[in-house]
Amino acid sequence: MTGVRVAGVGLTHFGEHPERTGRDLFAEASERAFADAGVPREDIEQLNYGNFMGALSEHQGHQGPLMAEAAGLNAPATRYESACASSGVAVREAVKDLRNGEADAVLVGGAERMNNLGTAGSTEGLAIAADDLYEVRAGMTFPAAYALMARAYFDQYGGTQEDLAEIAVKNHDNALGNEYAQYQSAITVEDALDAPTIAEPLGLFDACPITDGASAAVLVSEEYAEANELDAPVAVTGTGQGGDKMALQDREFLARTPAAERAAEEAYADAGIDTNDVAVAEVHDCFTIAEVLALEALDFYAPGEAIGAAARGETTRDGDRPINLSGGLKAKGHPVGATGTSQVVEMTRLLRGDHPNSDAVGGKVGVTHNAGGTVASTTVHVLEVDV
Amino acid sequence: MTGVRVAGVGLTHFGEHPERTGRDLFAEASERAFADAGVPREDIEQLNYGNFMGALSEHQGHQGPLMAEAAGLNAPATRYESACASSGVAVREAVKDLRNGEADAVLVGGAERMNNLGTAGSTEGLAIAADDLYEVRAGMTFPAAYALMARAYFDQYGGTQEDLAEIAVKNHDNALGNEYAQYQSAITVEDALDAPTIAEPLGLFDACPITDGASAAVLVSEEYAEANELDAPVAVTGTGQGGDKMALQDREFLARTPAAERAAEEAYADAGIDTNDVAVAEVHDCFTIAEVLALEALDFYAPGEAIGAAARGETTRDGDRPINLSGGLKAKGHPVGATGTSQVVEMTRLLRGDHPNSDAVGGKVGVTHNAGGTVASTTVHVLEVDV
Repeated sequence: MTGVRVAGVGLTHFGEHPERTGRDLFAEASERAFADAGVPREDIEQLNYGNFMGALSEHQGHQGPLMAEAAGLNAPATRYESACASSGVAVREAVKDLRNGEADAVLVGGAERMNNLGTAGSTEGLAIAADDLYEVRAGMTFPAAYALMARAYFDQYGGTQEDLAEIAVKNHDNALGNEYAQYQSAITVEDALDAPTIAEPLGLFDACPITDGASAAVLVSEEYAEANELDAPVAVTGTGQGGDKMALQDREFLARTPAAERAAEEAYADAGIDTNDVAVAEVHDCFTIAEVLALEALDFYAPGEAIGAAARGETTRDGDRPINLSGGLKAKGHPVGATGTSQVVEMTRLLRGDHPNSDAVGGKVGVTHNAGGTVASTTVHVLEVDV
Repeated sequence: MTGVRVAGVGLTHFGEHPERTGRDLFAEASERAFADAGVPREDIEQLNYGNFMGALSEHQGHQGPLMAEAAGLNAPATRYESACASSGVAVREAVKDLRNGEADAVLVGGAERMNNLGTAGSTEGLAIAADDLYEVRAGMTFPAAYALMARAYFDQYGGTQEDLAEIAVKNHDNALGNEYAQYQSAITVEDALDAPTIAEPLGLFDACPITDGASAAVLVSEEYAEANELDAPVAVTGTGQGGDKMALQDREFLARTPAAERAAEEAYADAGIDTNDVAVAEVHDCFTIAEVLALEALDFYAPGEAIGAAARGETTRDGDRPINLSGGLKAKGHPVGATGTSQVVEMTRLLRGDHPNSDAVGGKVGVTHNAGGTVASTTVHVLEVDV
């Protein structure tokens, strides 16, 4: 089994792209990844691509070959769909293939268009990540689902809307210097608390925005990196995946996320690391409460203890283990199919030192956590620099 | 690298299931696969699941965890989507994982509901497998696309509507004894030639029907099969995948399918077999012309020579190399996301001797060929019995 290196990464701006198709966005992100990697396109043996709602937003399924063409590849392509974890799964499958000698160079990435559906349309589109029969038809959209999870957490462990607001404030602060972020504007705890309620206890600033965007990364085997003398100091050293019951009603307890716990445990064991080795993480904060659940699933905090982490300054850029230095889904944006790979893109830049927030990173090990639905599916990856 | 065995297989009836959801269908297919396999559900380490148009037909994305639950699994699940090759890709990824020691037991399969969309709705749904911007908006549906391919073939190599009708007649004959087939009724060449034209030169009987259904297979490593003393005589010995430009307008030549040629070449090399070793095949005959293209891509015939194969009796059940003994997509039906795995299900039964048409199989090596869109993506698998 060989090691896996991140040879190059690329993003589009995350935000509103009314005049651009998914293929336009992915062409741009992959162009940047190739420019960064110095890997010729003809060396790429497969495209692993994530997309979630293209059938609804662009009447476009079968995006694998379409996006291979957009990226200038002549290689087989597969689309992975696992709701908001779609391109996290694409990364995981690429890592396995590279390790196992199935390929030496793979393009991974994802894209999503959402804003063209409008607010109601995109909410309806996102709802296909929940159980249509038993959740959506009863009126449960994702803000409502995460509000139930937040209530369960507050009931079990305590916590306040102000605790959640501190997470939003932190992630907006982190996005200030990130040119790819949808929101490059600071907010205050008061702004968050004064915002309209979307599903109590969650307000508007507890939710990530609706985002168009794309992400791409060129992953290669260690042998390929060495043979081609690539400057690729970041390795993917661990991967894990977990699953859970789809509908909240079928779960025993809503204040923990076992799918993410399982994925983290597998990824840490795979990388041979301990929780304490992790210096920095990008986690799936589609809602502020989701960041709390992620930090506990990743074993950074015991159950009930992550809720105050941002307020205590432990997860801010000056803290011991900064979380979502990119701005997270909350402020950087969440183009669903692009998000999993975008976390790997951000983490690669954070670790190798060319991210605007790299100076906040106090170690060599970073973790990415990408969740689908109400964490019914999760991938976790461990990235390390100079290994 | 270990070998891969098919431990058990299952299907639903292919046809119209107006009262049943995709999860109902997959629960039934997987129940049958587990009963056939004698593998306990708790041994399954992952679900690889194919679905194509669930976002449109059931407002349901993120079907991985949903279908894991329907199958009674507590394991991570991933949905693969590659249009009509969705569960062919799911099989391929499972084969790689089993070989490489990533798992010892995997459930693969797929499901699709289509009839609830009606004829217009399902045609519109199927169209998302083509290029929305450059094909579908110009009015090109799949019957039209395959009609263009048939015309190109006829122009280049010759061939008649009667040649195509012979393929439909053959596949209907093959389905007569298949209890899972949508059409268990014989047709004549005259029936086919007299049927309404759908896109010249293709008539109604050149096209596969709209189908609801599900398929499932339990795949295990050779070590697992031995350790558990499974009766699993069929092995998956080769896998290949190919891609092509999405839109027909971007292809150089419409009368060949290079994505399938590449997939076949890779799969044969992987299995260490020669074309002449192949005794039987299940190929993706979404239209009769597609069977012709498949037989040439699989190197059973030189370009231009497969068009008369059915009429000459070479591919009928009494021929040297029977094709689509299941009835094929044409007569057995084509529940898109289920089709790739259903070919593996049928081939397993054909090779191990418990298929109604097993007596027509004159060798130990079978091939499955599953294509997406206008063969913009393809997977090919080699199965062997008593290896």
